Amino acid sequence: MRIDGQPYRTIFVGKDGWTVRVIDQTRLPFEFVLRDLQTVEQAADAIRDMVVRGAPLIGVTAAFGVALGMRADPGDAGLKRAIALLGATRPTAVNLRWALSRMESMLQAERPEARAARAYEEAARMADEDVAACAAIGRHGAALITELSRACGGRTVNVLTHCNAGWLACVDWGTALAPIYAAHEAGIAVHVHVDETRPRNQGAALTAFELGAHGIPHTVIVDNAGGHLMQHGRVDACIVGSDRTTGTGDVANKVGTYLKALAAADNDIPFYVALPSSTIDWSMQDGLREIPIEERPAREVTHVRGRSCSGDLLEVEVIAPGSTTANPAFDVTPARLVTGLITERGVCAASRDGLLSLFPEKARTPA
Amino acid sequence: MRIDGQPYRTIFVGKDGWTVRVIDQTRLPFEFVLRDLQTVEQAADAIRDMVVRGAPLIGVTAAFGVALGMRADPGDAGLKRAIALLGATRPTAVNLRWALSRMESMLQAERPEARAARAYEEAARMADEDVAACAAIGRHGAALITELSRACGGRTVNVLTHCNAGWLACVDWGTALAPIYAAHEAGIAVHVHVDETRPRNQGAALTAFELGAHGIPHTVIVDNAGGHLMQHGRVDACIVGSDRTTGTGDVANKVGTYLKALAAADNDIPFYVALPSSTIDWSMQDGLREIPIEERPAREVTHVRGRSCSGDLLEVEVIAPGSTTANPAFDVTPARLVTGLITERGVCAASRDGLLSLFPEKARTPA
Repeated sequence: MRIDGQPYRTIFVGKDGWTVRVIDQTRLPFEFVLRDLQTVEQAADAIRDMVVRGAPLIGVTAAFGVALGMRADPGDAGLKRAIALLGATRPTAVNLRWALSRMESMLQAERPEARAARAYEEAARMADEDVAACAAIGRHGAALITELSRACGGRTVNVLTHCNAGWLACVDWGTALAPIYAAHEAGIAVHVHVDETRPRNQGAALTAFELGAHGIPHTVIVDNAGGHLMQHGRVDACIVGSDRTTGTGDVANKVGTYLKALAAADNDIPFYVALPSSTIDWSMQDGLREIPIEERPAREVTHVRGRSCSGDLLEVEVIAPGSTTANPAFDVTPARLVTGLITERGVCAASRDGLLSLFPEKARTPA
Repeated sequence: MRIDGQPYRTIFVGKDGWTVRVIDQTRLPFEFVLRDLQTVEQAADAIRDMVVRGAPLIGVTAAFGVALGMRADPGDAGLKRAIALLGATRPTAVNLRWALSRMESMLQAERPEARAARAYEEAARMADEDVAACAAIGRHGAALITELSRACGGRTVNVLTHCNAGWLACVDWGTALAPIYAAHEAGIAVHVHVDETRPRNQGAALTAFELGAHGIPHTVIVDNAGGHLMQHGRVDACIVGSDRTTGTGDVANKVGTYLKALAAADNDIPFYVALPSSTIDWSMQDGLREIPIEERPAREVTHVRGRSCSGDLLEVEVIAPGSTTANPAFDVTPARLVTGLITERGVCAASRDGLLSLFPEKARTPA
């Protein structure tokens, strides 16, 4: 996507041929700053501190992190250490583990001296695959928005989204926002209600930023407001992303997604989840019981980061001193509340049968 | 309730016998500051700017505002002006209109020279009635918590609440929090999950402050997290307040309440609404269609107020520059999602029959 007219991916290799460059998402929407990753430790920190975030981008960053690790120590111990270090950063997104096991099994078969080059090659391939998958999700999802637009007699289609599953969460295009970009490009009038998405405000900061940069009409609302808008006919569809999807269609996504899915069901509004298949954990059948939910630091709840009137980025404390907090980062939306999954191969029901209709090669995984 | 050991009401007449003193709730939880109201205009500003908030306290403040108005101009025009000025401050809370019409009809029957004294008297009576109603709500609600405690084998009962319906929302005790204070006094182990309650953070700022001051164990969570906690058995009951309740049991409360009610229903968790009967609008039957929902300023969404590391209270901007916002302040929870209404006369079903079983004298109002 473009920033000030210049096309960017969220992660790319610098002109030196090896430094990995990412957009520092903790500085958005007020500052657009690139950060250089030159060691596997820096890559792990960038994932843990959410300099990069979003399941697809986490996976690709981990792959490049392995490449950086191989540059420093391509031996078996170095490979093992890189995989372990990166694997310990975020527990919920399955793309992280998917990317790391793909890198590991591929590199184990290589001689150490060839590993760094192969790792860069494979990470770049993953990035390209992610872009292609997101573009395909955009095409399939745009067809749904086009249908809604027809059903509404051509008036603007109002989509509600939660958190950021846009191009900033991926390498380009995005998952939940890809259909919106594609529909907009196709001339469909679309407007997005953007959930603020506390505690880290990725909706207000990142989704609003990228929609604004692309010229898509949108309205930022607090996370509490979506139900009210749905009750009053102001939302035609919800589209969110996924950090992990079970083989049965349960969806772990940013905490609060479940509440919006309940409101959509209560108001007969379609609730779609857009995801590349790298986000599917075929081994899981019960998302609520099986998907590990990351508990993040209290400071994300006790403090809010923003821009002061003097233009500085700073944090202010927002809760009563002495109060304790809890900060689960994700929740699980059961498949029964999901109208459809938008994948790179098409749209399907949120069920094992639905997923297998698009990914028949997975039929042998246990159900 | 006590602040640093000293008993306070949220509103009271100063030592001079006429200045109305309130706690400035926009400075909490970091600063405890009293504000003096000496004119009806100051009272109206205090309500509009949410120096005081919470349906019961809004009503009592409006009553004292009329008294201040009568002090300056006790004629018919002065009375009419005071009622109109105060009535235009907040559209959703019905207590405001209830208090103003009670003051108006009482004062119209008085000679102008007697009006100021009578207005102070009536406002003080309303304050006392509110304290008595909240204490009674506390007793009835505590019985429910005691039952839950028994059902849980005596382990700590976990209650989730949204926004602030504590003593800061009333004159003393509170509505939703009164049962918690009463249960705590009775030796029942109770813990409260406090929704942050964006955009104004009244949960994180006010509810956490007053629970902490009273020594009640509590955990502040973002508004997105309650559904996840309910899915995992970490909430035994929800108790919230109400800004307006229809005669059929629909409840308008701080935006986001509806989402928590949906999650409670989806997880078989009782969802109670605590309210003094002054909050009931007997003339209304369909909350979703009939209750006016206040749209508040965009700045509440675009900016967050908090304490900087240097100790100053300041606002930071949190959304992408150029993005628009919407800020509906309330939503309506349909009666079907409410397990019971906790009133000063007892607990009843959220229905016309339920309410009439406690308030039979209202049977003549149209249904």
